[in-house]
Amino acid sequence: MEQILSMNGGSGEQSYANNSIGQSTCLSRSMPVLKQAVLDSCCTNLPETVTMADLGCSSGPNTFYAVSEITSIIYKRCCQLGRSAPEFRVFLNDLPGNDFNTVFQSLPAYQGKLREENGPGFGPLYVAGVPGSFYGRLFPLKTLHFVHSSSSLHWLSQVPPELTDKANPLINKWKIFISKTSPPAVISSYLTQFRKDFSLFLKLRSEEVAPEGRMVLTFRGRTTADPTSDESCLLWDYLGQAFQDLVAEGLVEEERLDTYNTPYYEPHPEEIQAEIEKEGSFTLDRLEVIALPWDSVNGGIKDDRATTAKRMAKAIRAVNESMFRSHFGEDILDPLFHRFIEIMAADTKEVEHVSLVISLIRKA
Amino acid sequence: MEQILSMNGGSGEQSYANNSIGQSTCLSRSMPVLKQAVLDSCCTNLPETVTMADLGCSSGPNTFYAVSEITSIIYKRCCQLGRSAPEFRVFLNDLPGNDFNTVFQSLPAYQGKLREENGPGFGPLYVAGVPGSFYGRLFPLKTLHFVHSSSSLHWLSQVPPELTDKANPLINKWKIFISKTSPPAVISSYLTQFRKDFSLFLKLRSEEVAPEGRMVLTFRGRTTADPTSDESCLLWDYLGQAFQDLVAEGLVEEERLDTYNTPYYEPHPEEIQAEIEKEGSFTLDRLEVIALPWDSVNGGIKDDRATTAKRMAKAIRAVNESMFRSHFGEDILDPLFHRFIEIMAADTKEVEHVSLVISLIRKA
Repeated sequence: MEQILSMNGGSGEQSYANNSIGQSTCLSRSMPVLKQAVLDSCCTNLPETVTMADLGCSSGPNTFYAVSEITSIIYKRCCQLGRSAPEFRVFLNDLPGNDFNTVFQSLPAYQGKLREENGPGFGPLYVAGVPGSFYGRLFPLKTLHFVHSSSSLHWLSQVPPELTDKANPLINKWKIFISKTSPPAVISSYLTQFRKDFSLFLKLRSEEVAPEGRMVLTFRGRTTADPTSDESCLLWDYLGQAFQDLVAEGLVEEERLDTYNTPYYEPHPEEIQAEIEKEGSFTLDRLEVIALPWDSVNGGIKDDRATTAKRMAKAIRAVNESMFRSHFGEDILDPLFHRFIEIMAADTKEVEHVSLVISLIRKA
Repeated sequence: MEQILSMNGGSGEQSYANNSIGQSTCLSRSMPVLKQAVLDSCCTNLPETVTMADLGCSSGPNTFYAVSEITSIIYKRCCQLGRSAPEFRVFLNDLPGNDFNTVFQSLPAYQGKLREENGPGFGPLYVAGVPGSFYGRLFPLKTLHFVHSSSSLHWLSQVPPELTDKANPLINKWKIFISKTSPPAVISSYLTQFRKDFSLFLKLRSEEVAPEGRMVLTFRGRTTADPTSDESCLLWDYLGQAFQDLVAEGLVEEERLDTYNTPYYEPHPEEIQAEIEKEGSFTLDRLEVIALPWDSVNGGIKDDRATTAKRMAKAIRAVNESMFRSHFGEDILDPLFHRFIEIMAADTKEVEHVSLVISLIRKA
């Protein structure tokens, strides 16, 4: 997974940078929670260097968003309180396949902008890129004061192993994610994998985050108890249907589709709370639901269903392309998303895009 | 400069990764000095996490070389002494245009190899990439225990300003670097720029390196007092001559050549010692001269002059291409190096390639 998954790089038409408005909106909607966490932490003594990590930073306009907010809030608060502002160390993390070159090349301009917005007393801000999976250790012991992650933790470390068992795999027929037609064993294998991954994530971060350090994590989730409701599954069902059509046309072998499953999960708040309590290193300070309208991909403009479907296809492609290409090959990408657009445009269902934002405090 | 200079990326025929055998040999020749510095530091108490930076890490087989040596030496020494080994934090630094993507993608394999060679008790090793010029601050205060840099510090932060003065520039006629024909003012402007840059480098690192921290720096230098001797200038003179030919053929405008100068300097040991003493933060523990044979680019195999010239052209191109392209345009690159090969092949002079390696200790 680590070798394959990456958001589309660069800044071209198919890039994640140009097709991540949903993630961007979600990120900005999570800011009140982030802001409160940062301000709370300013009540205590700040270290000389405040160290933060953004996990799953990707490459694009969202990469520096949270870091800009966190550092500016701290700087302004210190100015208000008449305290000397700390210097900042920022670690931008993503998988090794992420387009860090693009991130790094935009860094000088970004740092200039940040100084301009905050004034000459701001910083210095030391930025480093950290390639690697957040399902492994990334930082030395107790070195982080803030951890932020947005639109990343819904990715599992792997497809549930029951679905990839070479000898006797569970088959999630005609689907690439949980669906109403999925056998119960498929659904429970996804939940088990999520629990394992989220719990591991908490354990690893508990080693890296300093006592009373903060984490604000935003990721796709669901509000309905049923994991097969349209809220979680509608877009994946459209994709599954598009794949079925490619099988019917002979562009994809049925066996290829049978063996593809997306390493993704949308947890319910209760599933999150249970894992946090069980792992035990963090206190859950806040949990909020962010529900974006069905057509949020249009950026607030009302548009017809076909146009919305085209934008949605680009957004989904920018995120899933690396995995689809690796399993099905380059050639299916255009026909797949062409079919996706037709299928979505012909349907009338609408669901909100739900994310959860949680604010955690490392126990002392 | 920061926006332009970068070694050729990727792993193709023209890449730095495939054309840096000289730098690689020089690096391995500097290892005894590095090794002693690391072993010396093991005599004192090591911190829980040993933090090191490689400045000018580039992208290729040399990128992880020093880091592998430093971490392995410390690990083995701790095993010998029956002490618990530290964890390692490694910062790989280069300019923002460096091909960090290639570096990061090779990281999982590299870390696996390091664990395999050293045994399961080794590490963990946390790697981060730090984009930015080492003529600016890169790290928070007193956070580094080791700094290594190889084949980088001969690059100046800029062309000496006297040579780029818009109104009344000093002209270094038909040359792109110091040469016997250079006016004395050109030569002294280069020395002044080097002094300023090297002194700034020491001051910045003195802020970042912890007391008693070490730096081992290897860079091109000279052993003769005269900065215009063939030892320093021969290859640059060949290049200058190749450019002159392009001017004669109408491929390059004379004014373009007049305004190009390489931001590079090969210091004499006395110039280095003087700056270290003047800056005052570091003690010079060792200074060694590394002299590689004229045809070291052939990797130890004897070859005819024309073949050597071809390899030399590739090596010089992998390093200088980004700057040549930016000033003269893409089109001149092939004819330029074609001429360079002819000029070098037709000549008979041979000079050693001299580097200096210095080992410094941060005063407590």
